[in-house]
Amino acid sequence: MERPRHQGMTKNTYMRWRLPLVCLLWEVAMIVLFGVFVRFGPEADAHWEEEKREMNLTSDIENDFYFRYPSFQDVHVMIFVGFGFLMTFLKRYGFGAVGFNFLLAAFGIQWALLMQGWFHSFKSGKILVGVENLINADFCVGSVCIAFGAILGKTSPIQLLVMTLFQVTLFAVNEYILLNLLHVKDAGGSMTIHTFGAYFGLTVTRILYRPNLEQSKDKQGSVYHSDLFAMIGTLYLWMYWPSFNSAISEHGDAQHRAAINTYCSLAACVLTTMAFSSMLQKKGKLDMVHIQNATLAGGVAVGTSAEMMLTPYGSLIVGFICGIVSTVGYVYLTPFLESRLHIQDTCGIHNLHAMPGLIGGIVGAITAAAATEDVYGKEGFIKAFDFTGTYQTRTPSVQGGFQAAGIVVSLLMAFAGGALVGAILKLPVWGDAAAENCFEDDIYWEVPEDEESDVYHMHNPDKPASP
Amino acid sequence: MERPRHQGMTKNTYMRWRLPLVCLLWEVAMIVLFGVFVRFGPEADAHWEEEKREMNLTSDIENDFYFRYPSFQDVHVMIFVGFGFLMTFLKRYGFGAVGFNFLLAAFGIQWALLMQGWFHSFKSGKILVGVENLINADFCVGSVCIAFGAILGKTSPIQLLVMTLFQVTLFAVNEYILLNLLHVKDAGGSMTIHTFGAYFGLTVTRILYRPNLEQSKDKQGSVYHSDLFAMIGTLYLWMYWPSFNSAISEHGDAQHRAAINTYCSLAACVLTTMAFSSMLQKKGKLDMVHIQNATLAGGVAVGTSAEMMLTPYGSLIVGFICGIVSTVGYVYLTPFLESRLHIQDTCGIHNLHAMPGLIGGIVGAITAAAATEDVYGKEGFIKAFDFTGTYQTRTPSVQGGFQAAGIVVSLLMAFAGGALVGAILKLPVWGDAAAENCFEDDIYWEVPEDEESDVYHMHNPDKPASP
Amino acid sequence: MERPRHQGMTKNTYMRWRLPLVCLLWEVAMIVLFGVFVRFGPEADAHWEEEKREMNLTSDIENDFYFRYPSFQDVHVMIFVGFGFLMTFLKRYGFGAVGFNFLLAAFGIQWALLMQGWFHSFKSGKILVGVENLINADFCVGSVCIAFGAILGKTSPIQLLVMTLFQVTLFAVNEYILLNLLHVKDAGGSMTIHTFGAYFGLTVTRILYRPNLEQSKDKQGSVYHSDLFAMIGTLYLWMYWPSFNSAISEHGDAQHRAAINTYCSLAACVLTTMAFSSMLQKKGKLDMVHIQNATLAGGVAVGTSAEMMLTPYGSLIVGFICGIVSTVGYVYLTPFLESRLHIQDTCGIHNLHAMPGLIGGIVGAITAAAATEDVYGKEGFIKAFDFTGTYQTRTPSVQGGFQAAGIVVSLLMAFAGGALVGAILKLPVWGDAAAENCFEDDIYWEVPEDEESDVYHMHNPDKPASP
Repeated sequence: MERPRHQGMTKNTYMRWRLPLVCLLWEVAMIVLFGVFVRFGPEADAHWEEEKREMNLTSDIENDFYFRYPSFQDVHVMIFVGFGFLMTFLKRYGFGAVGFNFLLAAFGIQWALLMQGWFHSFKSGKILVGVENLINADFCVGSVCIAFGAILGKTSPIQLLVMTLFQVTLFAVNEYILLNLLHVKDAGGSMTIHTFGAYFGLTVTRILYRPNLEQSKDKQGSVYHSDLFAMIGTLYLWMYWPSFNSAISEHGDAQHRAAINTYCSLAACVLTTMAFSSMLQKKGKLDMVHIQNATLAGGVAVGTSAEMMLTPYGSLIVGFICGIVSTVGYVYLTPFLESRLHIQDTCGIHNLHAMPGLIGGIVGAITAAAATEDVYGKEGFIKAFDFTGTYQTRTPSVQGGFQAAGIVVSLLMAFAGGALVGAILKLPVWGDAAAENCFEDDIYWEVPEDEESDVYHMHNPDKPASP
Repeated sequence: MERPRHQGMTKNTYMRWRLPLVCLLWEVAMIVLFGVFVRFGPEADAHWEEEKREMNLTSDIENDFYFRYPSFQDVHVMIFVGFGFLMTFLKRYGFGAVGFNFLLAAFGIQWALLMQGWFHSFKSGKILVGVENLINADFCVGSVCIAFGAILGKTSPIQLLVMTLFQVTLFAVNEYILLNLLHVKDAGGSMTIHTFGAYFGLTVTRILYRPNLEQSKDKQGSVYHSDLFAMIGTLYLWMYWPSFNSAISEHGDAQHRAAINTYCSLAACVLTTMAFSSMLQKKGKLDMVHIQNATLAGGVAVGTSAEMMLTPYGSLIVGFICGIVSTVGYVYLTPFLESRLHIQDTCGIHNLHAMPGLIGGIVGAITAAAATEDVYGKEGFIKAFDFTGTYQTRTPSVQGGFQAAGIVVSLLMAFAGGALVGAILKLPVWGDAAAENCFEDDIYWEVPEDEESDVYHMHNPDKPASP
Repeated sequence: MERPRHQGMTKNTYMRWRLPLVCLLWEVAMIVLFGVFVRFGPEADAHWEEEKREMNLTSDIENDFYFRYPSFQDVHVMIFVGFGFLMTFLKRYGFGAVGFNFLLAAFGIQWALLMQGWFHSFKSGKILVGVENLINADFCVGSVCIAFGAILGKTSPIQLLVMTLFQVTLFAVNEYILLNLLHVKDAGGSMTIHTFGAYFGLTVTRILYRPNLEQSKDKQGSVYHSDLFAMIGTLYLWMYWPSFNSAISEHGDAQHRAAINTYCSLAACVLTTMAFSSMLQKKGKLDMVHIQNATLAGGVAVGTSAEMMLTPYGSLIVGFICGIVSTVGYVYLTPFLESRLHIQDTCGIHNLHAMPGLIGGIVGAITAAAATEDVYGKEGFIKAFDFTGTYQTRTPSVQGGFQAAGIVVSLLMAFAGGALVGAILKLPVWGDAAAENCFEDDIYWEVPEDEESDVYHMHNPDKPASP
């Protein structure tokens, strides 16, 4: 028996022609563009034997593949399982969470390979790709997954693809400004990924504001097992974050250091999250929403500085603060943003990515400004900040200033880009659901009529909402 | 209250003596054979210090362990979590899916170490094992996991062990013919693993045809959370497939290239799967079965060619096509195979492994035939196809011919082997369940009497099947 | 509608001030201690460029990061997802299992970095940390996760933090005695992690004996999906165990060998577990408890000897035996321990860690005592057992004796430490729940009122306990 869900619905969520058309046309475009532009980089090309000789490399182990591939796979897991399952916490939106994340990320990594390639790996008319490009493409898509968190349950798959197209483009531009023009360090992406991605998503959701969203309030919560599925996402993000922050750092000590700093920051963050989760609730009980999200803020907030000499205790301090800020944000700021600023942030990305991202940018600026040759060693100092060529004379305090400028640029790009994309997504052609059908897989997915949903149907009308 | 499930059942599914006997005797056989034959290879043996000196290696990092161990672990996850959880989609067969997969794979890797060892690592009467042998054993078992997908829910654990014993044996023979006699390249196993495994499994399930299987039709579907469990399997297979296809490629550029090609093919495959899943359904909704399976076809189909100079856009094209072929297969071919050819393919391996495997073999043959010294470089060309010794004069087009021959051999081995093993499994001594008890964990597992099953019992008799 | 759960409860489980206070104070203490003591080791410090030159290293790939980071990440997954999800098998304690495990491990790794650092990495007043320290901290916490298994569902989060503080301290002392004073080899921690952790936890649970625990008997079982969640934990532990046992072995052949031995032992263990699980049950059905746990015993039992020349067939024998011992333990010993010795062991760690840990210690002693220069090679022999300096003249049989002494020391430390900590945890200030509220997330967590729990409420009073 199908419930008359769509009664009174004014929106057309029929995807049968629109979604296939977008997917197929865009994939064809990818093939054409890849055909014209993308080739293997020297370390992945069959000419590598000659390359090795030219570069005086004596062993295949010097191939960048062996420096970065394990980290790449961890990052890959974070994007697809980490973000995908983190968002399965909603009781009836698990398919959408994990499935749409899969769709947008699979498209996004292709488009990111192109966009980032044109900016960073373009040689004699070709984009030369290697494992580092794969990591960067995953990173870029990470910022889209973050923005997805703000609009989770309220958008059609086509809207998500359109957002991905634009956001990846803007990400690549912003990244180019930061890394190449401002010569900013941001290996773990506190600014480029988290600050940009989160404020972009928040702007989009503000523009897509739904005044009647409380009509689907009953579906905006979790059930027991959906919270456990979400913990799979949380833990994989938490465990692999050291790989995330170290994946594209310089070979050797920088990668090693970035992993240690991130490990420490995340550990501290768990304790302050638990503390404030219990403290801010009248009955003193822990809230799964906080554990699932705020425990990760420590990884976000050392994204810029992890490869610097932040030191383990510095990392603990950053994690300590971020667990508090993020948990307090879930309790007080998210309701405020929704009621006063009309920002409906499904997953609370403002607490997990936006604020910790800003903190991360600031910590990075301070850490850079405080760098000395004494702490880094003469060679290490130059290597860590790449003070060579044009930047030979840049001082740490100037670097700190540019780092701070990077935060501002990322924010501006996020607001402007988010406003533009939000406006585009507001067009009534993308097939998003009516307010009463949000957070419901049944709109876009074949959902099995199962025992649980039987129970759901049976109990729902008989009794008032749970206390 | 136990339902009188077994009423009218003519089959004896009592495992208490048969299963332990098989497990214990076979494990004892493994111990004896390992005792006689298996020793550590030079890179895992304590004599390695001397070996290093002899081979003029200056660093421990040159040990093959560091080239392949991260990929090995990814492949290991694919076999046990990937295949295991992919098959948990059935509402009441999660224990069997993940548990029997665990059992057959744990036995299979031991037997594969022996079988493949005799063919490939046999020196002075001993099989010398290293990390590459572990990967190959996992690969071999992968083909059994594939075949398991066709008969999922319809066989006893003993039947699975018997099938594993024979299939691993035949796999090793087929692999020897392809790699050593035909000198075929197949690093990711489009032919040896997927084509062979899938057509083997399909032949077995054809022979085990159950005319009354519709008696357990109500259990052949998924429930909401079982579909999410299956997505864990899907995503791990999808994410780690680049490791699968690159795990045993040559050190350096070949491993690097194989990972990039696979990454690209899989990304494209997701988009065409989504497109056709929506397009082929009247309401335009996405079907979890397609997302769980067809998105992986791109990885299967570059199994042979990933380490070749397929190029990223070539990979996108392959992935594009396979997403379509596989999804169309689920919608039209699977019902046809069942109703007309009496092939009951529980997981639809024909769509995920058989057709994409064939495509993979063909793509490999074409890519090999099209190889030129210009594209690969002089040294790279020889290295990529191992055109040394006896094969010094083999040309790419001849290689392409042999590659094509490899497909045919794999098919023949699969059909003949599957027929033989199917006939053996049909003997009435293995304890398989009656048709009405298929897809039901309760036959072979202690199942907790839980809320869900209470609901299940309660609703089942009262109402007709869901629409 | 909230059930009057707490009726007649005499215990105060209100956490609102106690838990935050402990978390925040202790984290501040960590920051202060890290500030005073912890610095980057030479391979993670920005001075690495100079270090490299001094050590004549020609490539960044020689950084220990590249030898150990992939294994570190696997171990990290085992601690947080492996142990965390393994314990989600209880029907209403999933949040506590995965959440409290997260909390105690996040605190524990910080305290372990300090404790182990003082003993092993202390130079000129500073603890110098690198990736090996991270692995060792995870190992140390692993022993706490094991002990957690014995008291799962019966303790408050504060008790767990107190236990972690003490157990990590004692672990570090015991480890120092074994590795430095007795010069014992124990790379995979059969003695230091498993024997110590398990008997420590068993002693604690003995002292915390709850005579009325049968009041919560109905919650001590699993439901269908909680058993599948637990299998995620099982499989990750099983798959990554080769990384666990090889993570801190010597570079090169020792790591390689440890991975192979563990792979073999675990494979054999699965078969004997399945055999005995079926054989010991009247209906011959498999029991998920055994599959979830006893299949892992083979990894525990080669913890000491995996890096030695145990050989693949030796590993199979160890795994064979441990699958049997562990499964038999679950069927016969666990009920005996509970009824006669008043040891309430929620997860059956006696079967998974205690007995296999002892076997592992003994196998290690025998393997060491049986070592010859012939088997290891002259150099390999010295390297494998580090027979240099003070230990230059130690013979294999003497080493075997010291290994055996290591088991005894670990046992004594576990009993004495467990008794002390158990006594502390018995103080009535830590907020543990009354017997009737054990194994229930609702005490410490905000639990969503969901469909499942509706069903639970509805059916529970109407019918007697399931048969």
